[in-house]
Amino acid sequence: MKKINPISFTKGLWRILTGKPRIPPSLQNNQLLTTILNRRSVRSFSNQKIPDDVFNAILEAGRLAPSTVNLQTWTFGVFTPSQWKDIFGGSIPFKANKAIMILGDNYRIKQAEISFPTSPLIEYTIAVMNASLAAMNMNIAAEALGISSVMLSETGRSGLLDMAYIKDKLSLPDNVFPLMTMVFGYARAAYPPMPPKFPMNQIIFSSQYPVPDRKVMDDWVAQMMSGYKASHLNSSFESQLEVYKTKIASAEDNLKKMIFNSPE
Amino acid sequence: MKKINPISFTKGLWRILTGKPRIPPSLQNNQLLTTILNRRSVRSFSNQKIPDDVFNAILEAGRLAPSTVNLQTWTFGVFTPSQWKDIFGGSIPFKANKAIMILGDNYRIKQAEISFPTSPLIEYTIAVMNASLAAMNMNIAAEALGISSVMLSETGRSGLLDMAYIKDKLSLPDNVFPLMTMVFGYARAAYPPMPPKFPMNQIIFSSQYPVPDRKVMDDWVAQMMSGYKASHLNSSFESQLEVYKTKIASAEDNLKKMIFNSPE
Repeated sequence: MKKINPISFTKGLWRILTGKPRIPPSLQNNQLLTTILNRRSVRSFSNQKIPDDVFNAILEAGRLAPSTVNLQTWTFGVFTPSQWKDIFGGSIPFKANKAIMILGDNYRIKQAEISFPTSPLIEYTIAVMNASLAAMNMNIAAEALGISSVMLSETGRSGLLDMAYIKDKLSLPDNVFPLMTMVFGYARAAYPPMPPKFPMNQIIFSSQYPVPDRKVMDDWVAQMMSGYKASHLNSSFESQLEVYKTKIASAEDNLKKMIFNSPE
Repeated sequence: MKKINPISFTKGLWRILTGKPRIPPSLQNNQLLTTILNRRSVRSFSNQKIPDDVFNAILEAGRLAPSTVNLQTWTFGVFTPSQWKDIFGGSIPFKANKAIMILGDNYRIKQAEISFPTSPLIEYTIAVMNASLAAMNMNIAAEALGISSVMLSETGRSGLLDMAYIKDKLSLPDNVFPLMTMVFGYARAAYPPMPPKFPMNQIIFSSQYPVPDRKVMDDWVAQMMSGYKASHLNSSFESQLEVYKTKIASAEDNLKKMIFNSPE
């Protein structure tokens, strides 16, 4: 990865600060659409508590998410700050008011005697897919209710890079895979700028898979390096990648064991 | 899996037809929330076309979805009925007006020299997670715009059970994984009843992972068997599981090769 120079730093930051979702004028009055497109990952919360009925409605969005053959291969660990402290020590990451840990779960469905032929990778994929769908549905439901959140895959040892640690802390059975933790609260301030997204022409195709454009990719890296700090006050893009790299080898090893050595 | 008897069939069907999302009275005026909770998988569409601005707004929700370290490990194959026919033959499943195939994509990011240490399973998990988040965001954006959809993992050879076939048809590079196809259109009729969902106490926990309740599981299987036809006119729960079982062995084998034999 190249080092960034001051000109590309400034350009990158400018592009992030001016980046906006593209909402066609004809649809700007659609409140749900604008809520979805203006959603951000929020990492700074006020002390205000989330009312129970509101939080339960978020969980309901997880419960009712779509899933492959309606198998609902997910479980949600739901924690208040004190419950989190008892199990994991310390505060919920970013001192959020609630945490929902998203687990891909093939354990429950195996109790219902819905078992597929041995296919650990396909089963794992289905669990990850479905649990992620539920996560996103809860995330948007929260936005709809004025609650902000962020999905964590590493911060606070709360996601897939710490699967073995979490499984141990929560005494989870085989075929249950902690993937991420979403933490929720009322945003302390205005939403942060949007992190740099690839332009549409890089991520869609109709006949031929799109060849990545070298310049667009370099631009994106420059923007990530300039802008990561805007949303991650105590981190940088490079340091975050380093954290991933350091933890990834053992995570890979643990995940392999979990997927392929689980009893049927 | 036990055979179903007429009494449990009737009970199961009754419970599906009366199953409703639980929206607390205090939140019933929140239109965004009710749109999210009333979402259904729809398999019958009118001939009405989706306007371009509306469809582009759906794609924009995919482009702006959250992702691990903002890596955006997704690509969307976007097809009109005639584009679908040219590549795959026949109509888009359920004669929908548009199709978006969701691909987990680690190919693009590798071109940006953001490469992790060799960790095929972790990288694959991140791609599947992120692509699924994008899929759900598009699905809800569609609902917000009055467009219905269904996520397909097998029907029409359009999802993860046909990865090798799809990769061949679309000449996809290594590290690109077709996961599901969402098909979109205007619903032809009122939304179908909700398929049987596990009760909240089976899928959440705060300290101890919940032991699956035998009776709840049996109930769910009975409801799935009674009710699957309500939303799948030409199929049954058992036959759908059989399709999965038949295809799963070769899918598992292909997926293993794709994940572990991809060049860095």
